[in-house]
Amino acid sequence: MELRGDDWEQLLAPDAGEEIFAFAARIFPICRSITGDGVRRTLREIEAHLPLEVHEVPTGTEVFDWTIPREWNIRDAYIKNGAGEKIVDFAQSNLHVMSYSLPVRKRVSLAELKDHVHTLPDQPDLIPYRTSYYADGWAFCMAHRQLQQLREDSYEVVIDSRLESGSLTYGEYLHKGETDEEFLFSAHVCHPSLANDNCSGMALLTHLARRMVGLQTRLSYRFLFAPGTIGAIAWLAANEAGSARRIRHGLVVSMVGDGGGPTYKKSRRGNEPIDRAMQHVLRQTGMATTIEDFSPYGYDERQYCSPGFNLPIGLFQRSKYATIPQYHTSGDNLAFIKAEHLSESYSEIVKTIGIIESDAVYYNTIPKCEPQLGKRGLYSRVGGKNIAVENMAMLWVLNLSDGDHSLLDIAERSKLPFEIVLRATRLLRGHGLLASGRPSVGPAGP
Amino acid sequence: MELRGDDWEQLLAPDAGEEIFAFAARIFPICRSITGDGVRRTLREIEAHLPLEVHEVPTGTEVFDWTIPREWNIRDAYIKNGAGEKIVDFAQSNLHVMSYSLPVRKRVSLAELKDHVHTLPDQPDLIPYRTSYYADGWAFCMAHRQLQQLREDSYEVVIDSRLESGSLTYGEYLHKGETDEEFLFSAHVCHPSLANDNCSGMALLTHLARRMVGLQTRLSYRFLFAPGTIGAIAWLAANEAGSARRIRHGLVVSMVGDGGGPTYKKSRRGNEPIDRAMQHVLRQTGMATTIEDFSPYGYDERQYCSPGFNLPIGLFQRSKYATIPQYHTSGDNLAFIKAEHLSESYSEIVKTIGIIESDAVYYNTIPKCEPQLGKRGLYSRVGGKNIAVENMAMLWVLNLSDGDHSLLDIAERSKLPFEIVLRATRLLRGHGLLASGRPSVGPAGP
Amino acid sequence: MELRGDDWEQLLAPDAGEEIFAFAARIFPICRSITGDGVRRTLREIEAHLPLEVHEVPTGTEVFDWTIPREWNIRDAYIKNGAGEKIVDFAQSNLHVMSYSLPVRKRVSLAELKDHVHTLPDQPDLIPYRTSYYADGWAFCMAHRQLQQLREDSYEVVIDSRLESGSLTYGEYLHKGETDEEFLFSAHVCHPSLANDNCSGMALLTHLARRMVGLQTRLSYRFLFAPGTIGAIAWLAANEAGSARRIRHGLVVSMVGDGGGPTYKKSRRGNEPIDRAMQHVLRQTGMATTIEDFSPYGYDERQYCSPGFNLPIGLFQRSKYATIPQYHTSGDNLAFIKAEHLSESYSEIVKTIGIIESDAVYYNTIPKCEPQLGKRGLYSRVGGKNIAVENMAMLWVLNLSDGDHSLLDIAERSKLPFEIVLRATRLLRGHGLLASGRPSVGPAGP
Repeated sequence: MELRGDDWEQLLAPDAGEEIFAFAARIFPICRSITGDGVRRTLREIEAHLPLEVHEVPTGTEVFDWTIPREWNIRDAYIKNGAGEKIVDFAQSNLHVMSYSLPVRKRVSLAELKDHVHTLPDQPDLIPYRTSYYADGWAFCMAHRQLQQLREDSYEVVIDSRLESGSLTYGEYLHKGETDEEFLFSAHVCHPSLANDNCSGMALLTHLARRMVGLQTRLSYRFLFAPGTIGAIAWLAANEAGSARRIRHGLVVSMVGDGGGPTYKKSRRGNEPIDRAMQHVLRQTGMATTIEDFSPYGYDERQYCSPGFNLPIGLFQRSKYATIPQYHTSGDNLAFIKAEHLSESYSEIVKTIGIIESDAVYYNTIPKCEPQLGKRGLYSRVGGKNIAVENMAMLWVLNLSDGDHSLLDIAERSKLPFEIVLRATRLLRGHGLLASGRPSVGPAGP
Repeated sequence: MELRGDDWEQLLAPDAGEEIFAFAARIFPICRSITGDGVRRTLREIEAHLPLEVHEVPTGTEVFDWTIPREWNIRDAYIKNGAGEKIVDFAQSNLHVMSYSLPVRKRVSLAELKDHVHTLPDQPDLIPYRTSYYADGWAFCMAHRQLQQLREDSYEVVIDSRLESGSLTYGEYLHKGETDEEFLFSAHVCHPSLANDNCSGMALLTHLARRMVGLQTRLSYRFLFAPGTIGAIAWLAANEAGSARRIRHGLVVSMVGDGGGPTYKKSRRGNEPIDRAMQHVLRQTGMATTIEDFSPYGYDERQYCSPGFNLPIGLFQRSKYATIPQYHTSGDNLAFIKAEHLSESYSEIVKTIGIIESDAVYYNTIPKCEPQLGKRGLYSRVGGKNIAVENMAMLWVLNLSDGDHSLLDIAERSKLPFEIVLRATRLLRGHGLLASGRPSVGPAGP
Repeated sequence: MELRGDDWEQLLAPDAGEEIFAFAARIFPICRSITGDGVRRTLREIEAHLPLEVHEVPTGTEVFDWTIPREWNIRDAYIKNGAGEKIVDFAQSNLHVMSYSLPVRKRVSLAELKDHVHTLPDQPDLIPYRTSYYADGWAFCMAHRQLQQLREDSYEVVIDSRLESGSLTYGEYLHKGETDEEFLFSAHVCHPSLANDNCSGMALLTHLARRMVGLQTRLSYRFLFAPGTIGAIAWLAANEAGSARRIRHGLVVSMVGDGGGPTYKKSRRGNEPIDRAMQHVLRQTGMATTIEDFSPYGYDERQYCSPGFNLPIGLFQRSKYATIPQYHTSGDNLAFIKAEHLSESYSEIVKTIGIIESDAVYYNTIPKCEPQLGKRGLYSRVGGKNIAVENMAMLWVLNLSDGDHSLLDIAERSKLPFEIVLRATRLLRGHGLLASGRPSVGPAGP
């Protein structure tokens, strides 16, 4: 294991949040669902930045226990009152229609209308986000306060949607590294106008992938933009014998634009390099970090971590899903995400990449007693009370570089930031005090 | 490992405490010791409910390092003052005589009397319980306040006891299950009128065994009613090459009628199924549970967990022995135990049986990605913010049923009650989503 | 493994602190450095008590990555002001001269003087201790308050030192035990007049070694008095294939006379017998014990625990180095150390020796059920509420003496002091209840 290149450091960009926000804002208005043109339009936006490979999986295709559903598209939808006024309009918010609603065009009483309306009584000003992918039906979503104000009337309800044979669409981009071993980044693309969940994740990964173009990395990085659940399942079905076998690390990325967290949910395996690296990075942030054990509910880590795959993939978020009032409501809009938080999230992910890229095992070439750092100009020559963190990092790296401890092991045991351990490692390598392979004269047994 | 029958569920009985209390009250007055007719009378009471196998081990029989002592019986005992008034009367409380007291009939001064009286100065109204099994002597026990009021006088002391060759008596009942593997329940029968310690334990096990008659269980259940220490040792000596080798789980049961605890003391091995099951059950109670590591002092787990046997047997109690003021005093009477607490104790033991009976390893038959629960009617079809505990249980069971995790493992990791995990398992089994053996197409390696 | 002799108990000496203090006071005034006559004089003082083997390693000798430096000696040093008054005088405190200062004799301005003066602005009344072993230069150390009062003047600075080819000196004493396995005690001898750091350590080890003369011990004990870092490295280089391979336990001993701590820093291995024994002893003290994980900064454990040696050697101190205001200042004088604290430190070290000497694995000769302690007079015959600690110790030793648990294991698991476990072990051995080897009839499997 050689000391790796540091090309990944070029990914660091303290102000990345501005660009990420701009792209999130650009794709925010599109009405996405698990299939249909909303997803295709979104992927085309990503393609403007990346040579994306876009896949279409036909309706009816069997993917493990699942079947690709009919494709859903919607042109317009509204509710008009007896006076002909549009009181609910899809053009104003695509959350107003339950995703996968069947087409409808009729007049209904208030009572019948209420049977087809979802609201949030506890959050009466917000429109809920609802879906009904695998059951037939139609419904509107609206603010509870508005529903309460509706009077007995004859309402015209129109949903101009189509649910018909078509395909499911997903896109992927592979950044080739020195090895075929892959790091998978996965974002769901199936939600309509929800800014944090998951315009933020799509935008962050698009930005990351674009910055990676042209860089030399050790690992290959795959970026998957796919509808939640069925998209991840379709990808796994298509790549079971291929890419899925080459995945060594991975992150599901969603809700990365709000100011909560950061939150990391470990992979099912629980102590893989991605788990350790992500925890190490988050603990250095000084923010209100939450580290959660794996559980089988959440985003697409559910599929990646199913027992037949059991991939080392965790979930990175700011606030945890379903724990904040904006979750799955119209409150998750562009005002809810901030460039500042997107920058932080981006930075934490890049630092995690840095650990995964750089972690390696070295051998102290002078394992018996300490090397004399002073004569190499590596060490303060006048003794004093304090020893700098940088000196401690050198001592730790030398002491633990016995072939059994990687740099991440050393960072964990020393409680020093990985980047300081890495800097000390480079310095010691430069002076010949660390080797990649076991020195020919081994340590003496005690 | 097939999904086991659920006959054990018929043991559940929320109001079992009433019957248990009644039986405890019935055997409470009997003057028991480690040998003698008190034990025999007690076992005959149990025999009224169970086809008990009663053993007599003759005085002088060597059992490991011990020898069966002479048999002790007592007809009457009292202290009369100079006026001929009985001031202490065995007929009123059999605690008044130190167990294994030699016969005595003489007049003594107050000073000599005091040399033969045990009291509790810190609990001046209670009679202590004292024994002297392996040393010759005689003594009375009385309330300290009464002793202090005694004046100089000529006292007549009479203990009409016999200590002579005979035998030690114990009883056992075996409920045969599908396998010869045994679950041992053990209660000591040697204490006189102490309601909690251990009329409660004897009564609870009698009730449990009686309810088990006719049920089909996977394990065989052995109920042992034996005098403390020497009885357990005699049983182990007799069954060293037999039943003792077939014990896979066990509980010593004592002091199960008071409102303290519950308290579980782990087996010497410390992490056996009985230890994990009991802890799981107790943590679900919401009561002031105490889990203790094994220590070599206590009840007959001392013998079962001696290094030459090292059986997976723990101790179940409510209050821990020797931690409450009533312990080994006349305060441990029928007013101290309650049907309500006996019901709770019974229920916790039955739930533990349920875990041991039901725990098994299954295989998810669709291990790659999640099975589609919705199309099987197993899952809420309209997405929302919350997912019910029952749904989570299904997801956990599917995710962890990879052949490496038993249902108890899953309950522990998911922090869900075992019974909910079991219910989900049955539902998934019913839909063919779990198999007992490894599916022929194994999971893909990552 | 036989029950070992208890000669080590003769080391116990509650008032050892008086003698240790007296010796520390005797060697306190000597001006030591890493080479030179100060070290030789100190070793001669130790030789008055012990047949010390003194080694001289010539300047220029290569020891691993290091080279033995020139020898430094100093006769006198002072600063005189323009009026000819000595304002700083080496004869008053040898801390006034930076160790390894080159000779100098000239007149300097106040500005130039300040370039060659070390002070402690935060502790303005104390003289700092400074060294410059491997870089040429000269400097004085003084109280900051004094420096601030100096006026513009012409100062005469004189350091009458020599830095020339010579040798590095260290001493060692080996107490031969029954086996060649060694316990290394190591104290640095290179600091000038610092009472706690490390006159206290040298004096404690001298006292311990002297008391050990004539005692029969299982292990051999090596006492090393060597200059910090370079001395330990020189010893390791000379003994790499010999003594260093026989070390099974070790302690670096420094700063053992103040009232802080005690502090134990574990060996790099972290769970060796020395680590467990030391922790066990310290936890029994009832003092403000600190147990620290290994880190590669500190005293000579840095060398012993370098990856090429990785010896099971920890560091014993009272206050941890660099955590108290007196550290490396003139405040570390004879008033700072107390006989009382030296007694405590000595006692903790001797108790640790006792554990290492006595720890062994025994077999309960009656492993099935408990042996009847009563018939052997080992146990209270009348049952009662409480059982003494001594009884518990017997029960624990019997229960865990299955060939898998040593006495230290038993002490740790039972949370009983090792000495009580050891006393119970001796009692049980005396009654034939414990054997050193596995009994011919093994325990029955369950």
